[in-house]
Amino acid sequence: MRIAVLGTGSVGQTVAVRAAELGHQVTIGTRDVTVTRAGEFAGWAAQHPEVGLATLSEAAGAAELVVNATSGSGSLPALAAAGAPNLAGKILLDIANPLDFGAGFPPSLSVHNTDSLAEQIQREFPQTRVVKSLNTLTAELMVHPRQLADGAHSVFVSGDDAEAKRVVTDLLTSFGHTDVIDLGDLSTARGTEMLLPLWLRLYGRLDTAIFNVKVVR
Amino acid sequence: MRIAVLGTGSVGQTVAVRAAELGHQVTIGTRDVTVTRAGEFAGWAAQHPEVGLATLSEAAGAAELVVNATSGSGSLPALAAAGAPNLAGKILLDIANPLDFGAGFPPSLSVHNTDSLAEQIQREFPQTRVVKSLNTLTAELMVHPRQLADGAHSVFVSGDDAEAKRVVTDLLTSFGHTDVIDLGDLSTARGTEMLLPLWLRLYGRLDTAIFNVKVVR
Repeated sequence: MRIAVLGTGSVGQTVAVRAAELGHQVTIGTRDVTVTRAGEFAGWAAQHPEVGLATLSEAAGAAELVVNATSGSGSLPALAAAGAPNLAGKILLDIANPLDFGAGFPPSLSVHNTDSLAEQIQREFPQTRVVKSLNTLTAELMVHPRQLADGAHSVFVSGDDAEAKRVVTDLLTSFGHTDVIDLGDLSTARGTEMLLPLWLRLYGRLDTAIFNVKVVR
Repeated sequence: MRIAVLGTGSVGQTVAVRAAELGHQVTIGTRDVTVTRAGEFAGWAAQHPEVGLATLSEAAGAAELVVNATSGSGSLPALAAAGAPNLAGKILLDIANPLDFGAGFPPSLSVHNTDSLAEQIQREFPQTRVVKSLNTLTAELMVHPRQLADGAHSVFVSGDDAEAKRVVTDLLTSFGHTDVIDLGDLSTARGTEMLLPLWLRLYGRLDTAIFNVKVVR
């Protein structure tokens, strides 16, 4: 697949490298290519020539699947910069969390309970097929789940489009996920986004981000 | 221990029976003993003579440990009826969830993100040692965790009083819990209460309440 990863941070980098390793044609999208190339991204990019760099709109426009790996607060602006026409008909895998660091650590959520970031994105881009997933995991485990308990833990997908969820589930399976739970429509993303407050406390307690929940049933 | 279980519903009944079975002296507290004895509680009570019934204030006043097994919306009024002096110095194990069924199923949370029901209770009863736990599980698994995967799943405790958390942890262990994770102070109850939206979606998807999360690390 041609995959655009929106977001130049460590989460975007980690997902981009793994997808490229699996044979996908991957381009990271950024607001300003010149600025990104001049920053600390440059060192990473030099080590990963297999991953392209383009503007948000170019990356999204050329992709079949777009990964939202921007920060929660930056997601809607970044997607607006990518452009609704470039996202129309595409699968948007939303892995962001609406974390609000205004009051320090642990952050609270800027949207929650009766709405979610995923639903905000879907409302803003009704022609795009939004699937929420992977946001309950640290980046390393998103793409290398087998490094923890040989993959014996769970990940969730939420979305209104069954075919888009199937494509995302196949991608997760190729990453090594063994227990992909389809929660239902996109409103179920409220559940996985609201897992973050517990995730953050566990992170504080376990002194590592290499953990995950397994749904034992 | 002398344990008061506030709440006459199925959650309170389940916890009361199990605690009595383990040798504790258990009394269920209700707003009006006469009304409760005249209702559907009567049949259950006849089968469980080992569990006493008293008013909220009598039950709390006589107890060393009080379990809040009321509904989330009923918790503060029920505890007010139990009376602050009867709760002072006591351990209050809060197993309730602040579910708001105003918009149907799945319910949203009436308090969340920057506060929690447990913290509301603690602020209202500063002399009481509130410990949040067990609210992430269906009642049967709260007290019989070994029936699922021989207990290979997790439960959390949150609270400001280390000794109170130790007593609660011992009680959970006696129920059969094998992985009790101390998340830290009572504000960490935001994390476990906010797990409910995911729990509710999983419940809808798995068609059973006999499931739980295991924190794999």
